[in-house]
Order: sequence, then structure tokens, then C-alpha cells
Amino acid sequence: TFKEMVEELHPYDFAELYRALPEKHHFKFLTYLSTKHIAALMMELEPDMQKEVLLKLGIEKSSKIMDIMDNDDLADLLSEISEEELEEYLAAMQQDESQAVQQLMSYEPETAGGIMTSEFVWLRDYYTVRDAVEKFKSFAEITRNIYYLYVIDEEKKLVGVVSYRDLLLADMDEKIHDIMFNRVLSVSLDTDQEDVAQLIQRYDFLAVPVVDEKEALKGIVTVDDVIDVIHDEAQEDIEKLSASGKDIDFQTTASVAAYRRLPWLILLLFIGLVSGGILDSFENTLDQVVALIFFMPMIAGMTGNTGTQSLAVVVRGLVTNDIDRKTVTKLVWREFKVGIIIGLVCGLLVFLVAMAWQSFMFGIVVGVSLIATILIGTMAGTIIPLILYRVGLDPAVASGPLITTLNDIFSLLIYFGIATSLMHFLI
Amino acid sequence: TFKEMVEELHPYDFAELYRALPEKHHFKFLTYLSTKHIAALMMELEPDMQKEVLLKLGIEKSSKIMDIMDNDDLADLLSEISEEELEEYLAAMQQDESQAVQQLMSYEPETAGGIMTSEFVWLRDYYTVRDAVEKFKSFAEITRNIYYLYVIDEEKKLVGVVSYRDLLLADMDEKIHDIMFNRVLSVSLDTDQEDVAQLIQRYDFLAVPVVDEKEALKGIVTVDDVIDVIHDEAQEDIEKLSASGKDIDFQTTASVAAYRRLPWLILLLFIGLVSGGILDSFENTLDQVVALIFFMPMIAGMTGNTGTQSLAVVVRGLVTNDIDRKTVTKLVWREFKVGIIIGLVCGLLVFLVAMAWQSFMFGIVVGVSLIATILIGTMAGTIIPLILYRVGLDPAVASGPLITTLNDIFSLLIYFGIATSLMHFLI
Ligand SMILES: [Mg+2]
Ligand SMILES: [Mg+2]
Ligand SMILES: [Mg+2]
Ligand SMILES: [Mg+2]
Ligand SMILES: [Mg+2]
Ligand SMILES: [Mg+2]
Ligand SMILES: [Mg+2]
Ligand SMILES: [Mg+2]
Ligand SMILES: [Mg+2]
Ligand SMILES: [Mg+2]
Ligand SMILES: [Mg+2]
Ligand SMILES: [Mg+2]
Ligand SMILES: [Mg+2]
Repeated sequence: TFKEMVEELHPYDFAELYRALPEKHHFKFLTYLSTKHIAALMMELEPDMQKEVLLKLGIEKSSKIMDIMDNDDLADLLSEISEEELEEYLAAMQQDESQAVQQLMSYEPETAGGIMTSEFVWLRDYYTVRDAVEKFKSFAEITRNIYYLYVIDEEKKLVGVVSYRDLLLADMDEKIHDIMFNRVLSVSLDTDQEDVAQLIQRYDFLAVPVVDEKEALKGIVTVDDVIDVIHDEAQEDIEKLSASGKDIDFQTTASVAAYRRLPWLILLLFIGLVSGGILDSFENTLDQVVALIFFMPMIAGMTGNTGTQSLAVVVRGLVTNDIDRKTVTKLVWREFKVGIIIGLVCGLLVFLVAMAWQSFMFGIVVGVSLIATILIGTMAGTIIPLILYRVGLDPAVASGPLITTLNDIFSLLIYFGIATSLMHFLI
Repeated sequence: TFKEMVEELHPYDFAELYRALPEKHHFKFLTYLSTKHIAALMMELEPDMQKEVLLKLGIEKSSKIMDIMDNDDLADLLSEISEEELEEYLAAMQQDESQAVQQLMSYEPETAGGIMTSEFVWLRDYYTVRDAVEKFKSFAEITRNIYYLYVIDEEKKLVGVVSYRDLLLADMDEKIHDIMFNRVLSVSLDTDQEDVAQLIQRYDFLAVPVVDEKEALKGIVTVDDVIDVIHDEAQEDIEKLSASGKDIDFQTTASVAAYRRLPWLILLLFIGLVSGGILDSFENTLDQVVALIFFMPMIAGMTGNTGTQSLAVVVRGLVTNDIDRKTVTKLVWREFKVGIIIGLVCGLLVFLVAMAWQSFMFGIVVGVSLIATILIGTMAGTIIPLILYRVGLDPAVASGPLITTLNDIFSLLIYFGIATSLMHFLI
């Protein structure tokens, strides 16, 4: 039967089913589900569909579902709806749930506070394992995605952690104090979500406790949410590096996608016009040695390409490395040497081509220009994201297209600058 | 004391300490550590340092450490060393460990088989919870990162799963059969690691069982390793999208970094020279309307930029979406419309600039060219990765720099093609 099938399904599958159904059947589908299953479904849906479910169910039923939802997911949902609706829902919910979720909503979205749940099971260190297991059983509902029990003292300070495995391995009469691990790593409410993810990735934890200024335990960030953070942050870096705009997936409509991509493009368009101005100012040089034009796209392109390479290396390196002055110096020096090597190899190749086609001196102009522009391109791709990082901006804001467009300008200045100063050898 | 401190440290911290020590102290440091701690350290180190440890410890001690290492990590280590050394180590190891690791080494690296461990605890469905807990306790060492016990039948077929939480919540006399979850999702030995990661991300599992063709349980992929997969795959996409070469981090030397980036650059350099050939063939047009040159960098740049945007959206979309003909058609059509919208907006802006500067007809040539090249750029950035994906290649091979360089060529052909055909209006 439908009920049995539903019992066997995972929340992710509910959500897939729900998305696949035509909208007119959505309400019917919901009436077949228990409150618990609707709560599970809600936690998997995207905001627009969540709001649709709320609307279809009405305030009273919705508030029952909200009582059951994990409160990290609930906080995200409630931060998407209007002020008035929010108040109605909060009023209809159980008081403790409503207070807990309001507390969660007060933290910055991309911090430990913003992604944690405040539902966890705490123990005292004088409990026996038997006490702990009893408590665990009575809070079974909230222990699904957490995997650790946290030990606190009378001031709610976090003093230890016990895993489900520790409980299974211990004897019932042992004291929590004797089996707990007491050098617990924790993060603060305002720790950046990327740092939380880094911690979990390094130490292979399933969850990280979040404490306030007084070391009091406020919540837990779980590994399933950290996986989403790692995925989303990589996604964000790619969106920024390619200047492709935020949150454009296969479902986004054309007009929304165009709207999100246009701001960068219009900026880049005007920066690109500067290149024209530069060419204009070198009109004399161009008139005298028309052959210079033919290598222009290649030189501009190569400068952009090398810049994009350095940029990607730096932006992703900043995700996994702890940065200090020494690291930065070493990195800049390394990229400088890379620029020299790449410049020499490419410059030599192009020198040979240009010399064969025109003259020795023409080959020199093109080859030397390429070396210089590749070096500049590499340095721009290295230093610009580092500066952004230093002043507290996301280094990925320096997108590939931006670096490429700036490097167009640098390369034209260098190329025609060198050509102009060596003009008497060329004509 | 040092011993006490070491007991409190996490393996990741050992590894950091080891890396920070000058090499001459490495041996001394190792002598302070127990076999268990060296095994933990090994699992955190990169291949070069792992090999250094093996060398310092000698075959006999090393093989003891290998017996203790998680055998997924051990398989990775052993696949890095020479044939002869491998045989020596395998001979010195315990026979069952050596056989298990050889089996693991036989699977493709980026598949479920290649990232799984074959150490897990299995149960039979007629066990009581008490039996299960007993067995769990006697295999405590290998239960650290696994979180589930797997239930198999007499043919080793996977028939159910029990989490540590299920065991804690159950009564000691209950039968495993009655508490196990029996619609277990599993993957095959040759499932791509990205698909394993997608499964874990969707269902919030801590581990996924891996079965062979006969549904027999062969191993477990754990969430900590899946986190590394998600990170590495995103990293790989960024490396390919930026053509920045494989595995270049802040520690890579300049010559290695240059060596890894050069192949693409040299290819792009020669493709870039094609642009010069195109300009050459339009020399007449250029001679007659010199002003055309000034908009050339902007037009080529914008075509590259829009191409890069579409490329990033498609490549990352392929990571999270299941692809069929309908999705592809919808996506191509969406990007086509995006190209039209962006083209019209940018084309209009440039028309106004070019008209103000030269003439109405000049504005038309520049504006219409930009619309056409942006549309072509968008389509190239959409269709090229989809074709690569279709023929079984990684879509990210179509890097931003490649798309940009190809789009340089397309844009020059279109721009000067339109200008040439409208030449009589321009002069
Ligand atoms: Mg939140
Ligand atoms: Mg961030
Ligand atoms: Mg890890
Ligand atoms: Mg690990
Ligand atoms: Mg959660
Ligand atoms: Mg970021
Ligand atoms: Mg082992
Ligand atoms: Mg492996
Ligand atoms: Mg792959
Ligand atoms: Mg998930
Ligand atoms: Mg979830
Ligand atoms: Mg592992
Ligand atoms: Mg991939």
C-alpha cells in the first residue's frame, strides 16, 4: 500500500516524488503523509516549494510540522518568509521550539551559529553509562543526525564528549567521567562555516560543538550539513571565478540567468572599451607596422590564460591553507618564477614564428612582449586575489573574466609600448 | 610528558608536528611513538612523507604498522611504491591483511572499490542485539570510522543495516532481524566515486556499502573519505576550468608548476595564432576602416566572457544533475535565450558608443557583431562541454581558456565578416 511504501522511502525520495508530481496533485499527496513524513519532506525541499507546502497546509498544521523539523532547517525556512507570516507561525508553535528557532535565526547565515542545530543530548560527568543510555532513549527523536553526546558542567560549559561507539563499548556501570574524551575541539558561534568545514575535513569528525563566549554549549554542526557547505563553497568559487552569477542551475529561467550575469558583463564591456582607447593612442605605430595587429589577439589571449591559471591556484589554495606573511612571499616568488619559465618558453616559440614571417627584429618585439605580458599576467592573477583576501574580501571576486579583461589592457600597453620604442628597427 | 601529550593529540596534529620538524629530527620523533600512533600518523601524511617514514623504519617495523593501518589508506600507500618493495612489504605483513590489501589495490582508483575499506563488522539476522554488541566489542579497533554494522546472509549477500544508534535504542534480547533496516542502498565496486559522493550527500549517510555482481558485501565507503572526494572533485573541476594543471598547491615548486601548465598554454598559443591569420585575410577591410580595430579587443573579450559563464554553469550542473535528452534540450534552449538577452543589452550599449564616436552604420556593424558573437560564445560554452560529456570525456576538459581562445577566433570571423559585407555603408 501507499502507506507502506512511504514508510520505506527516504526523505530525499519523498522530495523527488513531490517535485515530479504535477502541482494539482501536491495537496492530495500531502494528505497521505503523516506529520512526521511531511516534516522530513520539508527538510529536503527548496524554499519555494517549502512555502507552497505551508500555504497548502495552513498555519495550524504547518506549525505542528515546524515543531518536528530539525531546527537548523526550520530556521532557514523561517528566514525566507515575510515578517507577518513569521509571527503567526511562531505564535502557533510550541513555546520552547519557537524560542529555540528564534535564537538560531539571530546568527549570521554563513557562520557556525547559522548552520548549527540547537537540538542535542547533554550529559553530566557523574552520570553512569546506564543513565546516559536512558537519557539517550528518551530523546531518541533528536539523536538521528548527531552521533555524539556532549558532557557539560553546572555552568553549561562543555567539558567532554562521548560517541555512540564509546557507549556501546563501555560497561553500564562505568562513569561518563571515565569514558569521555575531554580535549574536545569546539568552534564559536561566529566561526566562518568554511573553517568549520575545514576542521571536520581534517579531523574526520561527525559533528562539531558550538560554544558561546563563556564556553557554554549552544549547538552542534553535523557532518551532513558540512558536506553541503563544502559543496556550496566550491560552487561559489567556480561561480565567482567564471563570473557566471550566483545560483544559476539547470532549473533557472533564462531571464533570471541573464539578469544575474549581466552586471559583470556590462562592467567588463566598458573595461574592454579601454583597450580600444589604447589602440587608438598607438595609431601611428599601427599605421607604420600593420603586421603588429596580427599577433595582438594571441598576446592578449595568452596574458589572460596565464592570469586565469594563477588566479585559480591562489583562490583554491586560500581555501585549504593557513596564510601568513611567509606563505604569501613564497607563493608570489613561486608564481614569479613560473611566469619567467612560461614566458621564456612561449616567447621563444613566438619569436621563431614571427621572425620566419617578418624579420629578426619583429620576432624580438613579439617575443619580448609575450615574455613581459605573461609575467605581468601571472603576477596580476596572483597578487590581485591576495590583496582582496588581505582587505577581507572574497578573493574569488577577482574572476577569470575580470583578470582576462585587465590583462588585455596590460598586454596591449606593453606590446605596443615595446613596438613603439623599437620602431626604428622595424621600418 | 611527551607520551601523555601524544595520547591527547589527534592524528592530524601528529602529522602537522611531523611536517613542522626539521628532517633530521624525524627519526627521533618516530621512536617516541607507539606502533598505533605511527599508523595513525601515516594515514594523514602525503605519499612522499609516507615513503620517508617507511625508509626510516625498515621493512619489519613498517609491516607491523601496515597491519594496523586502515586498509583503504594502506592500499593507496602501497600503490605508490615500487614493485620489488611492494613484494617485500606484503611478504612481511600478516597474511590476511596482505591479501585484503592486494584485493583493494586491484580496483580502479576513482571508483567505490578504489576508495572503500574492506574492514567492517558483519552480523547475521538471527543474532540478538546482545550478540551484536559482543561482536562489536571484540572488533572495537576497526569500528572507529564506520558507524554501521551490516547484516549478511549465508551467501554474504547484504540484507540489512543496523546503526550504532539502533543498537543503543534496542533491548538486548531483541533480534537483529527485527531492528535492522532492510532496504539498504548499496553501490557496485565500479561505481564512480562522484556517484558515491552524490548518494551520501543526498541521503545524509555516514557510510555506503559496496557489493559485487552477486550482491555480496565487499567493503564500506565512509563519509570522511567522501568529504575528501567532494573536495578533490571540485578542485579538479576548477583546475580544468582554469587550465591551471593538476595538483598545483602552495607547496609545488616553480618548475613543476610551470611544467604542468605549459602543455595547455602552448596549444592555446598556436590556436591564438590562428586569430592573426584571420586578421591577415581581412587586411583589406582593416585598411579601409581602421576604426574597426579599436573594438576588436572588446568584442573578442566579451565573447570569451560569456562563453566562460555558460561553461561554468554547464560543468557544475553536470555534477549535481541527472542528465537526459529533455534536460539537455531545455538547457541549450535556456542558454540560447540567455545569449539573446545578454547580446541585445550589450549590443545596444556598444551601438550607442560606436555611433556617437563614428557613424550610425558603424554603430550597427559593431552592435550587430557583438550580438552575434555573444550568442555564438554562449552556445560554444554550452554545447562543447555537453558533447564532451556525451562522448564520455570530462566536460571540464573544455577549459575557460580554451573556450576563450576559440571564441576569439569565432568573434573575429563574425566581426570582420559583417564589416566586410557592409563595407560600402562604412566608407
Ligand atoms: Mg541556518
Ligand atoms: Mg564563505
Ligand atoms: Mg578527512
Ligand atoms: Mg582520513
Ligand atoms: Mg541539519
Ligand atoms: Mg569561499
Ligand atoms: Mg588493517
Ligand atoms: Mg584507494
Ligand atoms: Mg572523476
Ligand atoms: Mg545532504
Ligand atoms: Mg539534510
Ligand atoms: Mg578511510
Ligand atoms: Mg569531476
